[in-house]
Parts: sequence; C-alpha cells; structure tokens
Amino acid sequence: MKPLGPIPAPYAAQQGELIIAGQRAADLAEAHGTPLFVYDSQAVRARVAALRAALPARVALHYAVKANPFGPLVALMGGLVDGFDIASGGELALLQAQGIDPVRAGFAGPGKRDAELSAAIAAGVTLHCESAREVERALALAQGLDRRPRLAIRVNPDFDLRGSGMKMGGGARPFGVDAERAAPLARQIAQSGAEWRGFHIFAGSQALDAAAVHATQAATLDLAVRLAGEAGVSLPALNLGGGFGIPYFPGDAPLDLAMVGAGLADLLADCPPVLRETRLAVELGRYLVGEAGVYLTRIVERKESRGEVFLVVDGGMHHQLAASGNFGTVVRRNYPLALAGQMGAPVAGAASVVGCLCTPLDRLADRAGLPDGQEGDLVAVFCAGAYGASASPSAFLGHGPAAEILI
Amino acid sequence: MKPLGPIPAPYAAQQGELIIAGQRAADLAEAHGTPLFVYDSQAVRARVAALRAALPARVALHYAVKANPFGPLVALMGGLVDGFDIASGGELALLQAQGIDPVRAGFAGPGKRDAELSAAIAAGVTLHCESAREVERALALAQGLDRRPRLAIRVNPDFDLRGSGMKMGGGARPFGVDAERAAPLARQIAQSGAEWRGFHIFAGSQALDAAAVHATQAATLDLAVRLAGEAGVSLPALNLGGGFGIPYFPGDAPLDLAMVGAGLADLLADCPPVLRETRLAVELGRYLVGEAGVYLTRIVERKESRGEVFLVVDGGMHHQLAASGNFGTVVRRNYPLALAGQMGAPVAGAASVVGCLCTPLDRLADRAGLPDGQEGDLVAVFCAGAYGASASPSAFLGHGPAAEILI
Repeated sequence: MKPLGPIPAPYAAQQGELIIAGQRAADLAEAHGTPLFVYDSQAVRARVAALRAALPARVALHYAVKANPFGPLVALMGGLVDGFDIASGGELALLQAQGIDPVRAGFAGPGKRDAELSAAIAAGVTLHCESAREVERALALAQGLDRRPRLAIRVNPDFDLRGSGMKMGGGARPFGVDAERAAPLARQIAQSGAEWRGFHIFAGSQALDAAAVHATQAATLDLAVRLAGEAGVSLPALNLGGGFGIPYFPGDAPLDLAMVGAGLADLLADCPPVLRETRLAVELGRYLVGEAGVYLTRIVERKESRGEVFLVVDGGMHHQLAASGNFGTVVRRNYPLALAGQMGAPVAGAASVVGCLCTPLDRLADRAGLPDGQEGDLVAVFCAGAYGASASPSAFLGHGPAAEILI
Repeated sequence: MKPLGPIPAPYAAQQGELIIAGQRAADLAEAHGTPLFVYDSQAVRARVAALRAALPARVALHYAVKANPFGPLVALMGGLVDGFDIASGGELALLQAQGIDPVRAGFAGPGKRDAELSAAIAAGVTLHCESAREVERALALAQGLDRRPRLAIRVNPDFDLRGSGMKMGGGARPFGVDAERAAPLARQIAQSGAEWRGFHIFAGSQALDAAAVHATQAATLDLAVRLAGEAGVSLPALNLGGGFGIPYFPGDAPLDLAMVGAGLADLLADCPPVLRETRLAVELGRYLVGEAGVYLTRIVERKESRGEVFLVVDGGMHHQLAASGNFGTVVRRNYPLALAGQMGAPVAGAASVVGCLCTPLDRLADRAGLPDGQEGDLVAVFCAGAYGASASPSAFLGHGPAAEILI
C-alpha cells in the first residue's frame, strides 16, 4: 500500500463528509456535475491574510496568473493582492477582461513575440526583459508606439533555490539575463529614456524548507544591491521571486511561513540605502491558490483485476495531469486524495484510482489505502488549485474540460 | 551534444528546404502562421497503402481516433480505413460530425458513463465492454432504449507486448476483463439477446520489434480461440489491438512491417475453424498518422547563457507535451527536430530548443547538434501527427492552441 499526500488544512469533515468553504462536496457535485474543480475563496483569503501577517508590511504580494487563470479567481485576486505576474499576451488579455489595470502587472517569459511586447507596452505593463535583445526589441517597438516603456531586467542569478521542485535560476538558463551581464544592461535601460523598473530575480519554485527560501531571499537582495551598484542605477522595484511551496506528497511538511517572514524582516532591518525606497514584491502562484482547489470526480465503476482494486472515475489526467505524475515528476507519488463521503473512515484496503482515459498513464492514485469506494461515490483530489485545469491536456480523448467554480 | 531522433522518411529536402507534401515548410508557415501543425495526407495514404500491401487481405484496418482527432484528418480516414476505434462520447460525436457512420466504430475505454453508453448503443457502435458490470449496464440501458446492443469484450490478456512503449495488458489492469473471466461473460452476452461481436485484445502499443508484435498476435489469436471454445460462442469479430510503433528516438529503427505481415499471414494460413469467418482487425493510431505530422515553430530569439545556446521558439510544450519529455517518459530523449531552412546543413554546435512557456519543463530539444539557428528561422519537430495537439495542455500560460492544417 502506498501512502497518500497530506490533505490541506482548510478541508474539514463533518460527519465524515467533506466540506468545502462551508458547503458539502456532495451538494456541489450534485449541483454542478462532475468532474468539477471547486476553488475556495475563503481559503485564498486566509492564505493572503497569513502572508500579510507573516511578511514585512513593505513587501507587496503578486499573483502569478499562470498558476490558475480561471477568470473569477483572477478577479478575486484583483482585490486581494498588490500586483500580477503574467507570462503571455493571453494572460494580459485575461487581466483586462477581468477589469484589472495592467499597470499592476509585470510580464516575464522567454520568447515574447512582437505583438505581445507591443500590447504590453501599450497597456503600461512592466516588461521583465529576458535578454539584451529583448530590451532592444522593446525599445524599438515602444518608439513605434510613441510610448515610454516600463522595463525591468529578469536576472538569471548565479545561485539556485536549494531544494526547490523546479529550478529557474543558476547555471545556463533560457530565463533572464545572466547576473554577470545584467549591470551594463541596467545602465543602458536607465539611459535609454525608458522607465527603469529594477530587477526580477526568480531562483526556483515549490520549496518547503524555510531556511532555503530565506537563503535565496538573502542572496537575491545581495545580488540586486550589487547589480544596482555596479550599474549606478536606482532600484525602484525588486521582484524577489517566489519559491514558497505547498505539501503535495507523503512526508511533506508545510513551509514555515513565520520563519520566512521573520527572516525577511531581519534582512530588511538594516538594508542598504539603495533598497530603502524600493518596492519589494514576492511573486506567488501555487502558494496562494494551490491548496484552495479541490477536484471532485465520481466513481463510474469499482473493478477488480487479478487481486487489485481499481476505482474508475469520470475525471482523470486530462484535468489533473500533475496528479497523474506526468508533469515534471521523475518518481510518481500519490497526491492527497480521499473519498468525499467517508472522510476519516478506516482504510478498507489498497485501491488505485484511475481516470476514464484509455491509457495506463491515467492514474490519480496508485495502490493507496482507502475506505471502501463504490460506484457513485465521490473522490476528492486536493491541491488542485494550481497547475490543474489549465496545465492539463483537456482535449485528450474527447472527454472535454471540467467545470470550474469559485465559491 | 545529445543526439536527435531520426527524421521520418517522407520528409525530403530540396536545396536545404524542408518540403511537406510537395510544399515548402517556409511557405506553409508564412501562409498559416506559427506555431502550426501540418498533417500530410500523402504520408497517411502511403502508410495505409503500405499496410494494405503487407498485411493479409482479410485483416481490416481501424483508426484509433485518440491518436489525432483533427476533424479533416478523421474525415480523410473515413475513406481510407475500414473501421474506427473511439474512446469517449466526444469521439463518437466527432465521427458523426465528420459524416462517418458510427456503425463502423468500436468504443473501448474504462469508465464509460451512462450517457456515453446510451449514445453509442443508439448509434449502433460496438461496445468493447471493459467488465461484467459494464455489460450489465449496457444491457439495461439498451433495454430502456429498445435497442439491440452490439457487444464485444475487451480482454485483459495474460501476456503483454514485449518491448512496448506502453503496456495495456498483462497483470492487474483497469482495462478489459481478465482473460480467465472472459469466457463466462462471452456466453452470457451471446445468450442475452445482444449482438455478440467477439473480443478486443490490446496488449500494448509503440513496439518497434516485429518479432514481439508477431508473438503478441500469435498469443492473441490463441487466446481468442481458446476463449471462444471455453464459452462455446462464435467469433464474428476479433480486434487484434495495435502495437505497431514508430521511431522517435536516436537509435530507433522502423518496425519491419513486411515481417509482421508475413507472420500474420502464416498464423492465418492454418487457422482453426472458429476463426474462418471472423472479421479480423488491427487498431492503429500512431502508426497511421504519427509520422505524417510536422510541428512548425519559429525562433523568437537566439540566446546565449553561460556558454549554452538557447533557441527560444514561439511554440512549446503546450502543443508538444510528449516532445518536451513530460508525457509518460522516464528518461528525456530528443525527438527528431531540424531547422526547416537548413536541412542537411552541417552542425554548428549544440543548442537547446526551448518553448515560450515560462517553465523549465518547456524544452523541445536538449543540447542537440544543429546548424546555426537565428531569429526568424523555422524549426520543424517531426513525429507530431499523433498525441501532439490534442494530448498537450494548450491552455497552459495563455498562449493558446496551435493552428492545424491537412494538406
């Protein structure tokens, strides 16, 4: 029997029934059909409040739209966070459709096309330039538009985020300007007539070790100060990146947010003059919304084959690619998952939860200890709020996308 | 420097320019924009002709729609193959939209919902039942519809396809009825008043070893004959599964189709009486269309970072998840890929081709030996005809889907 990941704190049970934001999961599934993504606005608000309480007041919160671009969720974020990080022209259009002022957004990402750069410049978005060539293109396009572009440099640091699930910095990278080349480029931007918006330094994501996050933040501040000094420029803004992870797998413990916050406060207590007026921001996606989403799917059939039990559900990897272990994971481990009507019930035996796709890749839980699941029962996959619906191949095998609701 | 997979045979170059179905890749990209999937109807026809020539005349060809559900391609298949295998109600609707008679289709897949079963029964589709419970549900639904359902049994064999990229049979599986339980169920169906449509035995996919495919076909025929004998039923039809692989990776050699065909002819030469009138079929997806697709994407920027070259393109894993190594692969290897304007040109050095998504997962080629790629150059990713557009997370990061054309 293989263990399951830990169920996130917001999801209590009442009489063995899963409750999401005060509503029975069974009622939600009945009302909206399955498969269904439920995003819990209470959990999002609570997470934002926890961040506000833990982090120094001067540190702004940004939402990385890529984590979950569901319109109503993005709109909710509009009133909760201080800024947005976008990664495409499509995400810019999404902000605009949700009535969010694009001036609040920064746009990072390799391979920005001319049309995307132009739309972002016209909308007042800060471009996090990934290369000297991108700066050159942005300046030329801005001139054509007769706009003063807002330009920051995304830096590929000379360190990475220790223990991060996904390294975005250190070594040779497609992302950002190598740290050792960033200072001359910053000077060039500052002298170009563009609005200089500082640095964006993103070393990695999905770290659970507060000490590692702290070490990265310390190194990030040091690097930014050093680069500003070398370049002889001010630091109007500094995006410290993210990296705050959430527990997905057996044995994962939550990030110690208080320790991260206290550490960052220490770093800022005696900060060098160049940082005194800097607008500091952390950029969070998964940490803000990942645990606030639950994917509900119903058992179509309970099946036994050669001594193993399979619970075949009406959802699958076409909505939850990451939970199936096919999204950047080397060793497949089980996500947190439960039978929504038998929360806390004793384990009846090992069962694999498999999706309805006709491929052996479609497995949401592998030989997990579960209560007795039967046809019609509801399965909840947790940690479905980030990199779920939008990061899965929803057209695969023609079952179509899942419904999504924000409650 | 890491090797690239072998470029499929249909793609010749003229003066160093990639030609697809007689047209310059550069012209196609110019006319339709990038990123672009180009499906080559000549290559599909040639592959069907090769199969017709190699396989015994009595063996029908089925197209597994899941490999590529692009409407015009499915419509083309309507005139080329003898039957269709579908895996969802969505794929049934797709056939109907393309004017293909659903009576030609078989529907396999775990977790078929009531609505899918009903739609298939009403349309005359043969249901490849995955369990005794599914047979029970199908019979009840058919009664409600006052229709005589066409029922086959998908069997989970007691063997697998040696060397297959994806095992679909042997051991405990969510797919099919375990072989040792299939005979009584076949008898039950035959006695139920339903139209008995025989067995569907799919042991695995993506095998390049003709001897392994042959051994599986031999075992499949033996199993079907044995099950029919045990059950005391006829064998009106037998779907032998697929398993015919295509070369993706360095060192892969094409399947010896002549050997597979000759082997199958041998097996059928002295076939037992129960098989004499059986409609035999092979079910192919990837083998029919995989090599007939090319994904074209343009270099937005050539970038150097700490001694490595990155060619950042306007496409990526949101269209080509499998090529990025994030779809059921354990060890990432490079797909066949080339610069469409410099076919056959000498290697200038190692370069990684990375997509425009802001994630380190988005890499289409890793440190591959390529000619000198520059901004604006066109990159071709081969073997893009199967499990490409529809099996990728097209909404991820908001860049949107790729265009698709059939020429």
